[in-house]
Amino acid sequence: MPDRSWQFGIFAPAGFATEPAAVDRAVARLVALGHRVHVDPTARSREQRFSASDDERLAAIARMVSAPDIDIAVAVRGGYGWTRLLDRIDYASMARKPTRWLGHSDFTAFQLAALARSGMITFAGPMAAYDFGAAQPSAFTFEQCFGVLDNTTWEIECALEGPSQVVANGVLWGGNLSLVAHLAGTPYLPDVEGGVLFLEDVAEHPYRIERLLYQLLHAGVLERQRAVLLGAFTEYELNANDEGYDLAAAIAHLRTRAQVPIYTGLPFGHVRDKLTLPVGGRCMLETRDGMARLTLSHYA
Amino acid sequence: MPDRSWQFGIFAPAGFATEPAAVDRAVARLVALGHRVHVDPTARSREQRFSASDDERLAAIARMVSAPDIDIAVAVRGGYGWTRLLDRIDYASMARKPTRWLGHSDFTAFQLAALARSGMITFAGPMAAYDFGAAQPSAFTFEQCFGVLDNTTWEIECALEGPSQVVANGVLWGGNLSLVAHLAGTPYLPDVEGGVLFLEDVAEHPYRIERLLYQLLHAGVLERQRAVLLGAFTEYELNANDEGYDLAAAIAHLRTRAQVPIYTGLPFGHVRDKLTLPVGGRCMLETRDGMARLTLSHYA
Repeated sequence: MPDRSWQFGIFAPAGFATEPAAVDRAVARLVALGHRVHVDPTARSREQRFSASDDERLAAIARMVSAPDIDIAVAVRGGYGWTRLLDRIDYASMARKPTRWLGHSDFTAFQLAALARSGMITFAGPMAAYDFGAAQPSAFTFEQCFGVLDNTTWEIECALEGPSQVVANGVLWGGNLSLVAHLAGTPYLPDVEGGVLFLEDVAEHPYRIERLLYQLLHAGVLERQRAVLLGAFTEYELNANDEGYDLAAAIAHLRTRAQVPIYTGLPFGHVRDKLTLPVGGRCMLETRDGMARLTLSHYA
Repeated sequence: MPDRSWQFGIFAPAGFATEPAAVDRAVARLVALGHRVHVDPTARSREQRFSASDDERLAAIARMVSAPDIDIAVAVRGGYGWTRLLDRIDYASMARKPTRWLGHSDFTAFQLAALARSGMITFAGPMAAYDFGAAQPSAFTFEQCFGVLDNTTWEIECALEGPSQVVANGVLWGGNLSLVAHLAGTPYLPDVEGGVLFLEDVAEHPYRIERLLYQLLHAGVLERQRAVLLGAFTEYELNANDEGYDLAAAIAHLRTRAQVPIYTGLPFGHVRDKLTLPVGGRCMLETRDGMARLTLSHYA
């Protein structure tokens, strides 16, 4: 039995559920852990590459907010879709409700918009299909997720490569790098000063990862942070034109251009073992000899 | 013999020349047309995926500016590279020199930065490797390029799909959509009011094209333009998850969200037949029954 029993709402705000059985596994697994689960119709429907029309996905978001008993609204998966909805959401009224929001990838667009428009804290972490409903679920991912959700502070120790003996304390924010950069220049990128920015991405060539990070550099975002924590960058392919250029070269180059300490190795991204990170909460980062302690707080 | 004889400088500000023979063909073809050509060392060198180190590419740019006899500096190709240089260029002193700049794709980053920082006009058009040096060169591309460069105004007639009976007169700007969106939130995106924005891209899935256009919509860029002209979007692949979603669906959706008239079919992009478009010049657009006249001026 868990520390606390939660009511989950599983909904699909962006892409359709590509593997319906994964939603079933997520339900079974959460119920087995002592939680209750409500599955929204969007977790079973499809329109083109989306779970449903824009209006119907907005209605699903509204259901997660208005249903009195949903504690945690978790996305089935990412894909693409939140971008279409960003200017159609009433963030202020959403922020007054107790629903906690959980997801990553395309979900980042919503999380940062909610932080920017209403200061609302959301959770970057597991999703229903890939994590709770994974064929081979990760004990680490479950432990981290409920560790954060069941407590008002949470301490993480992990290996991080980067400058040693750094102590940084600030607002924790970030998510999928493509989506963070996608919000640059719009009203949906939070203006975080002195923050701890975490980033991950999937299926982006290192030159594109570099270009995305440069957008944040040229926009002045990187320099305003106390630390940048790079998670997993997965599923890209180098090619013959690269000739020695790779992700390590891109990061080494960016470290020569950006003043902010940049770390690599955060267990977050499109990987089995992922942290749950409160976007808009606080993070105290302490690093020493390749090890880091992250103390998460002010998110409950 | 051309209307005018120009001195070209061929340089590689971003990616290395992947096909050296194409540079040779470009030289031979321009010389055969009565022009002179100077080939910069970066057109023959390579470092990783770049033509040379950042410092050496900056030096090549400086050579294009300082060589007294170069009329037109044309990029070998795009790739990736200008992003690293954007904050290391003295745009004001560059704008005082008579060198005209020609290229597209990654070149867009430089063109928009130059317009934003110093009001400098540059030319979106052919490059040395893919256009002047193409195995099968396009007569249309040559005719359009020298039509623009040899004259102080230039009139284009082409088929454009979109609202009829529209007359729009404004600053012409744009280029590669990924690069335009890449500059959002940075000091390198020009703040053009009442402009005519042209866009193209290569190897981006329609959902990504839609997401990039949404960034310009959410940033308020689209609404500030009088017209958006979409060129070629090439070399992407739809997949089983799309199920009816495609580029036409993306554009149809955006037309329901954006107030600005959106046209498709502009002969520009990663295609053989391309216009040459003065970025920062003026464009009078007149459309009627699927046909458009673009009158380019104020660029010489």
